[in-house]
Amino acid sequence: MIFPKSFELLIQSFRKLPGVGQKSATRYALHLLRDQTNFEELILNLQQAKTQIQSCTVCHNISESELCQICINPNRNPAQICVVEDLKDLIAIESTNNFHGTYHILGGLISPIDRIGPDNLNFQTLVNRLTKIEQSELIMALSPSIEADTTIYYVAKLVQPYNTKLTMISRGISFGYELDFVDEVTLTKSIANRTPYNFENE
Amino acid sequence: MIFPKSFELLIQSFRKLPGVGQKSATRYALHLLRDQTNFEELILNLQQAKTQIQSCTVCHNISESELCQICINPNRNPAQICVVEDLKDLIAIESTNNFHGTYHILGGLISPIDRIGPDNLNFQTLVNRLTKIEQSELIMALSPSIEADTTIYYVAKLVQPYNTKLTMISRGISFGYELDFVDEVTLTKSIANRTPYNFENE
Repeated sequence: MIFPKSFELLIQSFRKLPGVGQKSATRYALHLLRDQTNFEELILNLQQAKTQIQSCTVCHNISESELCQICINPNRNPAQICVVEDLKDLIAIESTNNFHGTYHILGGLISPIDRIGPDNLNFQTLVNRLTKIEQSELIMALSPSIEADTTIYYVAKLVQPYNTKLTMISRGISFGYELDFVDEVTLTKSIANRTPYNFENE
Repeated sequence: MIFPKSFELLIQSFRKLPGVGQKSATRYALHLLRDQTNFEELILNLQQAKTQIQSCTVCHNISESELCQICINPNRNPAQICVVEDLKDLIAIESTNNFHGTYHILGGLISPIDRIGPDNLNFQTLVNRLTKIEQSELIMALSPSIEADTTIYYVAKLVQPYNTKLTMISRGISFGYELDFVDEVTLTKSIANRTPYNFENE
């Protein structure tokens, strides 16, 4: 069927959203045509999000003001900085409700193949933060990969002049995983990095 | 995590799309924040669709002008009118590429429980069409249901004064279905409405 051009363009726009195929995109467009209130509301909320959401000048989290709600929260420890690749990872850690420090979003990982070097990432603002903190801890919370290892190595070199403790989230076998389905690298490392059993942790 | 308000509102808007949950809605919003070109394009295409898409004055299909692309197509038979519930069903039939008549979108079915009576549906425009056609065929292509049967009955009464042949899409057992999984009504009707074997149809 030949759709009107503006309807076709709308479907194409929806198709660019992650995981949305032709069928879902058409359903979304049809739904909006049927429900004009929703249609107007979606346009309005997209426009507002576009104009109001900015990047926190300290940690690069999304925010509607200069500082994000995590950075201005007096209950969060500004000396404990969890370094993440992107907002998605920050949201994942926040949803555990168990981390009470602050974050620093790098905006990617060092990846020479993709031509992403240190200059393309938020390292300068990280160093700026460290200069203002007497004693800090940087927790590198990056999804395990070659690029993550490169980035962690770079950060380790970068923060040497500062009084900061560099840690990494532990790697190993995830809860609920079957040992025989785990890749060899992870399995080898999880044996090499074995931890003593501790009644208190269980 | 406490999201900025405009980000939260955007997620809520996406959640109102059919089949979209919290996780997908958040993914869509995050994707747009990362890709500003897509973000602007989506807003623009939504606005254009909102202002440019109207209803065809003849058949109620979506269109960017007074008449839709099916109604103005000289290769489509205006005297063969396929009556459908909504645009979704029109798209389904068009995608078979085997129907060369025109359509009439009712905008729903008669359903006293949902307080949808004949006045809420596009019957007047249908009658207007019939007055202008010498001899017509109305194909009632409604998904089988009680409401569909009521609507077909109403249409049959409505079009009696006109020289129109009223037909219904055939009901029976869909290709690929297992007989023992078919409901009793369909099975009974498919035996009652059995058709003679015809070498030409196979």
